[in-house]
Amino acid sequence: MRSICAIEGVEAAGIKEGKYGLAIIRASGTAAATFTSNLVSAAPVNLMRERIAAGRLEAIVVNSGCANAYTGKKGYADAVEMSRIAAGALGIEADRIGIASTGVIGRYLDLERIGRQCKEVVPLLEHSAAAETAAARAIMTTDLVEKHALIEADGFSVGGICKGSGMIAPNMGTMIGVIYTDAEIGAADLQTSLRLAVRRSFNRVVVDGDESTNDCAFCTATGAAGRVPQAEFDAALQACCASLAQQIAADGEGATKLIEVRVSGAVDEEAAEAVARTVVGSSLVKTAVYGEDPNWGRVIAAAGRAGVRFDPDAVSLTIGEGEAETPLVRDGVIVSDLVRAKAAMHGRRVVFTLAIGEGEGSAAAWGCDLTEKYVEINGKYTT
Amino acid sequence: MRSICAIEGVEAAGIKEGKYGLAIIRASGTAAATFTSNLVSAAPVNLMRERIAAGRLEAIVVNSGCANAYTGKKGYADAVEMSRIAAGALGIEADRIGIASTGVIGRYLDLERIGRQCKEVVPLLEHSAAAETAAARAIMTTDLVEKHALIEADGFSVGGICKGSGMIAPNMGTMIGVIYTDAEIGAADLQTSLRLAVRRSFNRVVVDGDESTNDCAFCTATGAAGRVPQAEFDAALQACCASLAQQIAADGEGATKLIEVRVSGAVDEEAAEAVARTVVGSSLVKTAVYGEDPNWGRVIAAAGRAGVRFDPDAVSLTIGEGEAETPLVRDGVIVSDLVRAKAAMHGRRVVFTLAIGEGEGSAAAWGCDLTEKYVEINGKYTT
Repeated sequence: MRSICAIEGVEAAGIKEGKYGLAIIRASGTAAATFTSNLVSAAPVNLMRERIAAGRLEAIVVNSGCANAYTGKKGYADAVEMSRIAAGALGIEADRIGIASTGVIGRYLDLERIGRQCKEVVPLLEHSAAAETAAARAIMTTDLVEKHALIEADGFSVGGICKGSGMIAPNMGTMIGVIYTDAEIGAADLQTSLRLAVRRSFNRVVVDGDESTNDCAFCTATGAAGRVPQAEFDAALQACCASLAQQIAADGEGATKLIEVRVSGAVDEEAAEAVARTVVGSSLVKTAVYGEDPNWGRVIAAAGRAGVRFDPDAVSLTIGEGEAETPLVRDGVIVSDLVRAKAAMHGRRVVFTLAIGEGEGSAAAWGCDLTEKYVEINGKYTT
Repeated sequence: MRSICAIEGVEAAGIKEGKYGLAIIRASGTAAATFTSNLVSAAPVNLMRERIAAGRLEAIVVNSGCANAYTGKKGYADAVEMSRIAAGALGIEADRIGIASTGVIGRYLDLERIGRQCKEVVPLLEHSAAAETAAARAIMTTDLVEKHALIEADGFSVGGICKGSGMIAPNMGTMIGVIYTDAEIGAADLQTSLRLAVRRSFNRVVVDGDESTNDCAFCTATGAAGRVPQAEFDAALQACCASLAQQIAADGEGATKLIEVRVSGAVDEEAAEAVARTVVGSSLVKTAVYGEDPNWGRVIAAAGRAGVRFDPDAVSLTIGEGEAETPLVRDGVIVSDLVRAKAAMHGRRVVFTLAIGEGEGSAAAWGCDLTEKYVEINGKYTT
């Protein structure tokens, strides 16, 4: 098993009818969630913001095809009803069900379809590789590949599935992550751990700079493995989220390459993150990577507009990793070997490492190249 | 005459050799300038930040092909030398010469070429339509069209040329504006007026969200027309800059359409500007406009991540202007007629008007659609 069903007691299932999918994951535990910071948040996000406060979930239901966003009071009532329908099918209290939606904005949920799909999916629930795959597939929209991650730590595991290939694409978009662990952890600590893990993973993925109305990540801790050291749990959860985040970036709409930008030497992690996100989100960096053009000036120029102070004449920049790491600028002096630099851009993964010489803060961010295909997916699709 | 040479006493000339161009504009007056806020600013920008403090210029020299950016101390010395060379050719003190550069980052100026071009251009200086055209063409890089604007106000005029087709494209990029007026205005007032005009024009153009190391706008006031009311001057200067800014947006790399986003009902102008810039810079809005897809959910979702508070259920959004204006959302209720909305996207200019119902602040921003051609220009060009 590659993700959620590697966690003892987690059952999953999912179906997809055309673009309308439904996944259910069942496992009882303490629970935490993080949500989009977009002011325009979808009805299921608004509902879950309240419901997660209880710190406990028995199941999570995710539908794809309709985001139930920008749907006003009726949308909120529909979200409540969706959780009631699932509760009835599962024999669980509605208050213990997590819900998430992804798909078209500005359309109402088809509750009749949701009801029928819930009835079909519940009997399929099982603890198996096929089941986690079905769930991961059911929540896909423009994703080309399903996304699984599993971190096996000392005595416990963290596994998750997610969907997402643009930070937002209102026709078909959104990032949704569903993570389980068998570690025993209180809801408040779990919320703190998840918030940090999301900050260091999903919040550092930039596909197109847009942010969905529906983004959310859940983490449920079943406790079957007993208590574990907090630092070990944090590390495992972060590794799981980072793996999923990189899979989202690599599957970015139209992408041919994953871009990783590592920034060190910032005054703090926040400053490093701002620089890394700005560089990885730059259209000019993204198009240069697509064209395998070692145009490092675009990286430095993007860093310069991140709102973080540093001395441009003291930065060092490399491209590639491991043995292929090639210096481009060292302490502000251009040392680029453009032939080697271009070679470092050939693969499916391009890494820039930027040291800005101001302090000890570091962070990485992930994105993808910008291609004609992205334009085609988002421009040629007609509502 | 269409721009700078409509101002009495302004002489211009320019030549272009392949991608290396040089323009000189000569006219004496009080002067102001605004520059890029990118931390990584080019040598000519650093030099002019100091020099403009004297508030007086006799001429402006702009070269294209090399940005003289990320060139360290040698770059700064080269910028000083460039102004000395021009000063020698013009018979003017170097301290009274404004300079600007645009082109490749990370390469040194070819001062020999600059010297030769200065000697060739100075004898061509004249007050004519052909001269302002030659100057506007000499500073073009990836621009497809030269850009002129002229506002004839009551008793005075403001005319300008500019170049720019991406907020930055380090191979070939940057926005440079050169504006003249015959109004008489002190350097300090001129600086205040220019800063406001740039804020309301060039700073509201988003082609790709990147910001050049070399952006600058100069305004020189010859005073020939005598003193004019400050409010009238401000309006004329803003109209001139707004015209140039819209020409930059329309000539955005790969663009097929100009996008104008007007936001009203914000708590203040700054909030309205933030929303307008975020919407016009959204890759998803840009691709939707390219595809003539009336996907208004992308506009609302982009507005929601602008960092400005408003009630999503109280917004109104229209597409088109004048008789073609079509409501999409009214007070939070979806009223879109997708057939009419699509029709409003057919032309070269697409206008979204968003009212967020929080106050009296309003602002417009301009951008362009995102096309396969943008990707090709920026991805397929190899350093």
